[in-house]
Formats: sequence, C-alpha cells, structure tokens
Amino acid sequence: MANTGKARAYTNIALIKYWGKKDDDLILPMNSSLSLTLDAFYTETTVHFDETLKEDQFYLNQTLQNPTQTKKTTRFLDLVRHEAGITTPAIIESTNYVPTAAGLASSASGFAALAGAASLASGLELDLQALSCLARRGSGSATRSIYGGFVEWQMGSNDLDSYGVPIDDASSWDLAMLFVVVNQKEKVISSRDGMKQTVATSPFYSGWLESTAKDLITIKEAIKEHDFQKLGETMESNGLKMHATMLGATPPFTYWEPDSIQAMQFVAELRQEGIPCYFTMDAGPNVKVLCHKSDLPKIKAKFATIFQETQLITAYPGPGIQLSKGDFY
Amino acid sequence: MANTGKARAYTNIALIKYWGKKDDDLILPMNSSLSLTLDAFYTETTVHFDETLKEDQFYLNQTLQNPTQTKKTTRFLDLVRHEAGITTPAIIESTNYVPTAAGLASSASGFAALAGAASLASGLELDLQALSCLARRGSGSATRSIYGGFVEWQMGSNDLDSYGVPIDDASSWDLAMLFVVVNQKEKVISSRDGMKQTVATSPFYSGWLESTAKDLITIKEAIKEHDFQKLGETMESNGLKMHATMLGATPPFTYWEPDSIQAMQFVAELRQEGIPCYFTMDAGPNVKVLCHKSDLPKIKAKFATIFQETQLITAYPGPGIQLSKGDFY
Repeated sequence: MANTGKARAYTNIALIKYWGKKDDDLILPMNSSLSLTLDAFYTETTVHFDETLKEDQFYLNQTLQNPTQTKKTTRFLDLVRHEAGITTPAIIESTNYVPTAAGLASSASGFAALAGAASLASGLELDLQALSCLARRGSGSATRSIYGGFVEWQMGSNDLDSYGVPIDDASSWDLAMLFVVVNQKEKVISSRDGMKQTVATSPFYSGWLESTAKDLITIKEAIKEHDFQKLGETMESNGLKMHATMLGATPPFTYWEPDSIQAMQFVAELRQEGIPCYFTMDAGPNVKVLCHKSDLPKIKAKFATIFQETQLITAYPGPGIQLSKGDFY
Repeated sequence: MANTGKARAYTNIALIKYWGKKDDDLILPMNSSLSLTLDAFYTETTVHFDETLKEDQFYLNQTLQNPTQTKKTTRFLDLVRHEAGITTPAIIESTNYVPTAAGLASSASGFAALAGAASLASGLELDLQALSCLARRGSGSATRSIYGGFVEWQMGSNDLDSYGVPIDDASSWDLAMLFVVVNQKEKVISSRDGMKQTVATSPFYSGWLESTAKDLITIKEAIKEHDFQKLGETMESNGLKMHATMLGATPPFTYWEPDSIQAMQFVAELRQEGIPCYFTMDAGPNVKVLCHKSDLPKIKAKFATIFQETQLITAYPGPGIQLSKGDFY
C-alpha cells in the first residue's frame, strides 16, 4: 500500500446552518444544511503510516502536539485504521492556511483534509461520497468541505447516508464573501456544547427544524434560478433563526458582540443604499457578508471606514478537496 | 355628575412579556404577562367634559394636539362616553413625567391615567378591575399600571375577563431598577407592528407561548418565595425569548443596538463579580437592570464607568393609580 497521503481541503460557510445532532457518536445532524466552500482558508495535511512509530505523532502548524492535543486526531485515525485493517501509527502534519490567528481556523477543512490524507495513506479507496461520510466522523461540517461551491449536507439517517452532495460549483456565479473579524473575547461556549444545550432546552428548536427544512428548499431554488436576493435573504434569515434558538436555551447564551450588531446593521444600510449584500454568523462573533464579486471592493472600503481596527478578509468560492497519494513524504 | 376627573398612573416594566394579540380590537393578548410598577415615570391626566365644546381638545405636556394626534384619545373617550351614555366632548390635559425625552414615555401610564380620569369625569363608577379592562382598550400594558408592585395581566378570553391582578405590592422587597438609556436611532418598528409581524410569521411563536406560560408560573413562585435569583433569571430568559421570536419573523428584525449587547454583557460580568442583577429589554434598545436597592449605587457607579455618555435612571417599585374626582378643574 501507499503509506503516505496528502490532502488540501477548503473551509466552508453554511448558508443554511447545521445546529444540533441526533447522534453524537456518528455525528448525524438534526437537519440538512447547505454551504459555500471558500478559497481563503484551507488546511493541508499529510498522513504517513510508519511501523517504526510507537504512537501517532501530530504536528499542527509545524508544532508537535502533546498526547491530549493528539487525542481527537488519533481517535479519527482509529476509524480509518479499523476500516483498512491496520494498526500502524502515523505521523500527521497539518497546516492551517488562515490569514491570521483570528479564530477562523475551521474543523471543517481540518477533518476533511485529514480524512482525505489518511484514507489515501491507508490504502482505502474511497469515492468522494464515502470520504464525506468519513470526514463527518471528525466534524459534521467537514462533510461539506469535500466539494467546491454550493454543497448540501443531506442529513440521512445512518453512518452511510449522511454526506455532502455538490449542488452547484458556483463558477457561473458572481459571488464573494467579506469576513468582518470582530475582536474576540473568549468564546462563550463551543459550538458542540452550544448546539447540545440548544437541542436539549430551547423551546424554539422544533420551530427551527421546521423552518430550516423550508429554507433549504428555498435556497436550492435560489441557486437553481441564480436569484441572488432570494439566496441572500434566505441565508440571512436562517442564520438569525439559528442564533435565536440560543436565546431560548437554559441558560440562554449568544455569540453576538456589540460589533456584530454594528456589522449587521451596516449590511442593512448598504442594502438601503442599493448595494445587494447579506450577512450570516456562526458560533462566534464574526460577521460574514455575501455579495457580488463586483461589489466587493466598494463594500470592503465602506466597511473599512466604520470598522477601522477590524480585520476584513476577502473570500471567493473555492474548490473541492485536492488529493495526492504516494511515498513522497 | 362630576364632570372632571384626575388620575396619576405609573409606568410598569414587564418581567414576563406581553408580545402578541389574539384580538386587535379588544386588545386581548396571546399570553398572560407580569410586571413591576415603577415610581420613576408617570402620567397625570385630567379629563373635563364640557357641553360648550364642539370636539375633544387634547393637551399633551401643555401643547394642544392637532386632530390627527387627538384621534386615539378621542377613540378611547368614545368608549367611555358610550358606557356612560353621554356624547359630551372633553378637554384632556395629560403630562408625562419622564426624566428626559429619552423615549421612555409609556402608553401604559398614559392610558391607565386616561381611563381613570375619564371614567371618573363621566360619572362611571368602576372598580379597579373594570378600570383595568377599560385601560386595556387603549394599550394592553395599561391594564397593569392600575396597580402597584407586581401585577399579572391575566389574558382572559373576552372584554370582561382580561385585566390586571395585583400579586404583591413589592413593599417587603429590596428592589430597584436601573434604566440604561441607550442612544436611540429611529425605532425600527413599533411594538404594535412588531408583535403583529411576529405572531403572523415567526416559527418560534408557539414555543414562545408554551415557555412563557411556564415562566409565569415560575416567576409567581419566585415572588411568593422572595427568591430574587429565580425572579431575575426567569425575567432575563423570558425577555431574551421575546427578542428571539423577532429574529424568526419574516422579515427578521431586532431592537438591539451595539450598546444593548454591551449592557447585557456588563450585567453578566457584574453577576460574576458577585453582584446579583438581571436585565430585561422591551421593544427598544434600552436595557433595564433589576437589582437589590442596596446594590443600586454600586451598580450605577460601575455602569457609569463604562457608559459614560449614557443616561442612567434609577427607579423603585411604584404605587397603583391615584384618582381624584370633582369640579376642581
């Protein structure tokens, strides 16, 4: 077998959000979601199985991780080893390409790249669908980073039918995304814990599921019709609904910071000026603005006048996972 | 009949929110609510029926209002006149006692005072329960300003059984409220329109009604038990849930400003410092902080260090409506 595999996977931003699991172990979601893969942030990972090792060695951004930091990676590799019928330890080298350490590194690109590299190195011959299933076991959103452009994570009902499906590679769209990197205080709650608490306690959760199922249909229509306004409005309202569910949790929580509100208000103002753009937010205070590529310079410049000390990062639709196999390590 | 009546009514802040009507004309609410009447803001109103007038004359804060501005008042007086079997026009003089024009004048105190003064002047002999029903026809929250302290507005099902009920006059509590008057931009949407839009379109509305019914039970227990923490936590979470319902509306909306978030975060920080206090927000960006009277100076001083240009107003539990009858006009 080839004992080395290498992969590059890009992060994705959900337009229809994933928020809640129905199976914590298999990471099966409570609802289907839909994302846009982006070119600005990605992870490159090499996995090399080596019989001379006693245990996995995990280098993240050129730094050897201690056993505690390696645990999640080892647990994920165990799935691959089990599938491939091997027990060999591995050297894992993973680098996150993110403009700064602004908290934008994503487990989506990380586990997609790890799944790709590890499956190649172990000799597993997985098609992209099976790779998406595998990536899911590391992080739900990683299912979607297997493909470029718009990707739906079909929730499915078991380990084998819950995976990403490419919807549109977005190459014929005039799309861009501006990341407004709001200065972060310490994250109030991890997305894993946040969604768990929401599912368990929020009186809004059933309403969220019902309306998200509708939003998914609407946004797929919008993608088919190339209707940017419909796309943006559906994304914006779906994201707000996700954040609303948290306010109903016991205890309530929010990821919003004062600057998040200001950025969301500013997007609404830009729209009133006639510039089509829409926002979404994830489990953190940053605001992501979806717009036409052609409007991006103008929008970025306007944001820069208001958010003078805020990092503004530009992204465009990105490709699917890139894989290379062999003993080149 | 005595043709002049005078009343003073205090505003109230809902701890369990009123958000949605099941009857727009009778102003019957979708859920029961519970408030604390406060001493800081009140309205004084005199109504004098005068056969020599051709139409109602409405002076608000010493300024004669034009016919458009007088319409709501006349429509309310028509209910009273109809009940009393008269058609006589009236002079209405109403003054809002609010520290500044910071948008804190409330229709609650306004319509409670108008109901009190008009019913007296017309010769109607209404007990407080009937007065609360009458006030409701002007503004739902006015039902609660008939009484002091903690007041429940029992939603009822018709014009006669939807009224305020005194729960506890709060005189044995050590309570205060700090109003953090966030600088207002133009109000995004009136509370009347906001609740209408929410009831019609938010997927969270049924969850809101269910959980609010539970919150009402919990907060009444807290009042009975003099449990400040339970009171505050229930108030805070109920208020957040009301605001969450709006994020689910089509189109979504929010009353939150960046400073609202900052004030809410600051309340959480004060709690972590060991100072018990809790926030609530209504259909606007201001944040109201419920605390022990004894902690108020400390809390106000701490807020003043962060919110240097923000008005901070102190309030304490207030009394019920005050009425006086006779030809003293």
